[in-house]
Amino acid sequence: MLPKGFIVTAVNCGISASKKKDLALIYSKSSAAGAGCFTSNSVKAAPVILSRKHVANGIARAIIANSGCANACTGQKGLRDARNTAEFVAKGLNIKSEDVLIASTGVIGQALPMKKIKSGIKSLVHGIQLSLKDSSTKRSDSKGVSSEPGALAEAILTTDTFPKISCRKINIDKKEVKIFAVAKGAGMIHPDMATMLCFILSDLNITSSMLAHALRKSIEESFNMVTVDACMSTNDSVLILANGMARNRKIIRNDRNFKIFQKALDDITLELARMLARDGEGATKYVEIHVKNARTFSDAKKIARTIASSQLVKTALFGSDTNWGRIIAAAGASGIALLPDKIDIYIGNICMARKGCGVKYNRVQARKILNKKKVSILVDLHAGKKAATIFTCDLSYDYVHINSCYMT
Amino acid sequence: MLPKGFIVTAVNCGISASKKKDLALIYSKSSAAGAGCFTSNSVKAAPVILSRKHVANGIARAIIANSGCANACTGQKGLRDARNTAEFVAKGLNIKSEDVLIASTGVIGQALPMKKIKSGIKSLVHGIQLSLKDSSTKRSDSKGVSSEPGALAEAILTTDTFPKISCRKINIDKKEVKIFAVAKGAGMIHPDMATMLCFILSDLNITSSMLAHALRKSIEESFNMVTVDACMSTNDSVLILANGMARNRKIIRNDRNFKIFQKALDDITLELARMLARDGEGATKYVEIHVKNARTFSDAKKIARTIASSQLVKTALFGSDTNWGRIIAAAGASGIALLPDKIDIYIGNICMARKGCGVKYNRVQARKILNKKKVSILVDLHAGKKAATIFTCDLSYDYVHINSCYMT
Repeated sequence: MLPKGFIVTAVNCGISASKKKDLALIYSKSSAAGAGCFTSNSVKAAPVILSRKHVANGIARAIIANSGCANACTGQKGLRDARNTAEFVAKGLNIKSEDVLIASTGVIGQALPMKKIKSGIKSLVHGIQLSLKDSSTKRSDSKGVSSEPGALAEAILTTDTFPKISCRKINIDKKEVKIFAVAKGAGMIHPDMATMLCFILSDLNITSSMLAHALRKSIEESFNMVTVDACMSTNDSVLILANGMARNRKIIRNDRNFKIFQKALDDITLELARMLARDGEGATKYVEIHVKNARTFSDAKKIARTIASSQLVKTALFGSDTNWGRIIAAAGASGIALLPDKIDIYIGNICMARKGCGVKYNRVQARKILNKKKVSILVDLHAGKKAATIFTCDLSYDYVHINSCYMT
Repeated sequence: MLPKGFIVTAVNCGISASKKKDLALIYSKSSAAGAGCFTSNSVKAAPVILSRKHVANGIARAIIANSGCANACTGQKGLRDARNTAEFVAKGLNIKSEDVLIASTGVIGQALPMKKIKSGIKSLVHGIQLSLKDSSTKRSDSKGVSSEPGALAEAILTTDTFPKISCRKINIDKKEVKIFAVAKGAGMIHPDMATMLCFILSDLNITSSMLAHALRKSIEESFNMVTVDACMSTNDSVLILANGMARNRKIIRNDRNFKIFQKALDDITLELARMLARDGEGATKYVEIHVKNARTFSDAKKIARTIASSQLVKTALFGSDTNWGRIIAAAGASGIALLPDKIDIYIGNICMARKGCGVKYNRVQARKILNKKKVSILVDLHAGKKAATIFTCDLSYDYVHINSCYMT
């Protein structure tokens, strides 16, 4: 499942009361090309600030990630803690501190429990050293360290209800290349800033600039199209490492091989983006909002996102309420100039409004469609030729429950 | 309670299943200066389109308003219905159709039940004619027509839990001037578009241009500072009539008398704005978000509004959760350039974060403050001298309940 040359270990180091894995380490046996995309929130967590710096030279070797504590709004101490964490990992693995990337997720404003983190890192490094000696080791050792890929996915979860893993195999120059990715995210999810954690590993041989290029493009139509609650995180990080161990001829430009890789990467990020929406906090339904025939992609995206962010649309979806008026009202509130008299609205395959006016529809059929686990809404603007799709979910009692007692 | 020369009547004409008043008529015995502010949503309801046109000449005489049906997204038929409604009122009262303003609120996308509306208007006009004959008539007549000011407030309510009335008496040129206002709004409430219905009546003698000036200024720091659910309505209308029957010297410029009026008007709109937030759908708490020491008012407003619109902040408030990290994360997501390391955050009088970092605070005390019916949050940016306050509420299970079955 993992690409060549990568080892992952995960452990519970006791950051929160939960017994699930909460600290994970990713290690590449050889130096890898690295790239990252980070939150555009003005308030950036310490790990985001540090990882941006460390990945700037396009080289990386390891990722250390924890859940349960975001290390955000922790000032100079938070930055010191992040730096110490990277240094401690680097020392254990005998690599440069600048080649260690770091990611945290969880409660904002609390300091990392450094004693627990360091003790956890010790176990994780030990696990990696064991794996290096004996590559067949894939079970949990006595200290509860697991080197299963699934344990990595588990270690970064917070309110997520299921781990999110996606992988692909592709052929580049007759070499098998693997891409493996994990992601987490269920709340504080909003487009345009890759609102979550995602680590993508590959044994592809590629320059770091082409890798960064592929990542940016891939995120634009996947993670940047997800919204759960219109709330932007302080910790979003998507990190990608490609260590070249598949031994394909190095990709240095936008050629056929690059396109094969890009396609596979897009598939993976899209799959994960949909999982994030499906696992939105309290979600009972996965919802796709398609806006088509807009003047520009940016118009289509902004309108789709305004609809997807509307509490009124989301609660109507939860209640399987055919209240399409809220959809058109949200479109009108998007700030994009519209011709309301041209807009058609469909829920599933049922037309609810034509030329901006309600039409008669089969209510029983409509409720049936809205009662499904996956709902699709189409808004046809009849104003141009561009389209966008946003991945989202409904707003349920459980969202309120989860978020009214997150800290307490 | 009502200013001189105004008569109101209200009735249940059966638009929805509810037995509450759902149609109201306001009439001024003499021609009045009129002004209005309307939704900035691209999708505008028929009554908004018509009232904008009718009030453009600065003269008005009557307002007809209904709840239960928004007459939005109803195309040409909707516009015809709105026009017919105004004409029917004008005919009954023997005034010009252009002097009738119209406002609707309720479900989007459904046609006005014109038969019920017309029969209702007949009763309302009859009630006004009776009042004109005998000014002491203030009770409900046999047809259920009431001419109590409270019945007007009731007739425009939808999911509101209480009627919203505010009035003031002022002295202009030793004449007593009254201002009386009613408002409705609980959901689809978001700033910058006066998101609700509000009718303000006065017997002040003033030019229509000065009246419009006063209204615009007054709305900016009152209704435009309210958000319940960040959803912009298609029907927002604030209408003001001033019929001059107090016989003060006509206000024609920004003089001392204008300032007295402006102050009273500001008091009224602020009081109503706070009522709207307090009555937000499902709200258990009224919340004020103060942002101070911003570079500009617009910065302060945008940051306060982003915090007030955050589902995560609102659900934390519902749960009395001291999760201040969500407040600073929302501030950072506002799109306004911030210096996170300078931000202080207070909940009530308790400092939660100083210079962007969490500080120790008394948890028991903090929960006590958050458990109150009125909560105040202060974000001090230490970046300038401007401030703004947004009026909002929490996000509860009841919001989800109310809005997941609004139509069904």
